[in-house]
Amino acid sequence: MSSTRDIDALIEMMAKLPGLGPRSARRAVLHLIRKRAQLFTPLADLMHTVAASARECLNCANVGTSDICDICASEKRANGQLCVVEDVADLWAMERAGVFKGRYHVLGGTLSALDAIGPDELRIPKLVDRVTTEDITEVILALNATVDGQTTAHYIADQLEDRVTLTSLAQGVPIGGELDYLDDGTITAALNARKKL
Amino acid sequence: MSSTRDIDALIEMMAKLPGLGPRSARRAVLHLIRKRAQLFTPLADLMHTVAASARECLNCANVGTSDICDICASEKRANGQLCVVEDVADLWAMERAGVFKGRYHVLGGTLSALDAIGPDELRIPKLVDRVTTEDITEVILALNATVDGQTTAHYIADQLEDRVTLTSLAQGVPIGGELDYLDDGTITAALNARKKL
Repeated sequence: MSSTRDIDALIEMMAKLPGLGPRSARRAVLHLIRKRAQLFTPLADLMHTVAASARECLNCANVGTSDICDICASEKRANGQLCVVEDVADLWAMERAGVFKGRYHVLGGTLSALDAIGPDELRIPKLVDRVTTEDITEVILALNATVDGQTTAHYIADQLEDRVTLTSLAQGVPIGGELDYLDDGTITAALNARKKL
Repeated sequence: MSSTRDIDALIEMMAKLPGLGPRSARRAVLHLIRKRAQLFTPLADLMHTVAASARECLNCANVGTSDICDICASEKRANGQLCVVEDVADLWAMERAGVFKGRYHVLGGTLSALDAIGPDELRIPKLVDRVTTEDITEVILALNATVDGQTTAHYIADQLEDRVTLTSLAQGVPIGGELDYLDDGTITAALNARKKL
């Protein structure tokens, strides 16, 4: 290779990021080298800072820079609602929507017989514990509408019923969605859950 | 946002890389935080190293970690052939093919009337200079088969004719290519340049 060892190693490492392959990693590294002052050095500095400070919230497993994340630390968010999500990315998606004012609980995945992931591999015991000890009135199951997601939702519902109100996100036609492009399952769900105008 | 300021800033900066958008930058940052020891810290370290050491070769404009790149420094590569490419990425592509044993000259783009890029914006004067001072017998124009690339090739040919043998990459059907999927221009070029079996 013409590029020297460190540059090759950087390209190889960047290619391991999700969404990047060898070709886009090469493009990204060339882009960085060209924009050294504006982008490369600040990015390297920021990576060091975040690599040193990022941690999981001990309560909800959200990613932040302190042991208890901003949401768990905020008294305003203690409204009795607890939203259960599979992944930190799902939590961030909920926050971008900006409509949920309660707290979260990140499971860290879904139950999966194939991958041998049981309740103890996820943060389900911690969830049961939080429902017992925190002042929670409603648990909103915001799991993905996949088979594993729904299996997990049913398992959690079994664990928590009688203790708390359980709800789940509505299923139906997405905003801006065209019927012609929707799958049969979504149309069936939307029809079954139809509501009066 | 639930994630704290540094993490948000890192996502925003990563989203500026070519090939990444806001969504894939978020995925990449979450992936990095999860693989802190194996990936995140080593990547940040390597970025610092490369940001500090990467530079353009003063001779050919290849990217490396010294003022004169490995190819220009190697006596073995001084075989009288000089391959002219638009971009460092093209140089790397040629090197991956591993078949060219001479040296390179990176133009840094193509002539473009629309973008007001003339010969002096590119490294064409330096190319003429190298042909005069170095012991070069053949200049291989490996420019992209685009309108701008071919315009640039013709301009360089005008500057250098009589001084040196000029060649260009062959145009035709790519290896593994299916006629049905090729554009008309490629088929025309391949037919015009047909050769005896």
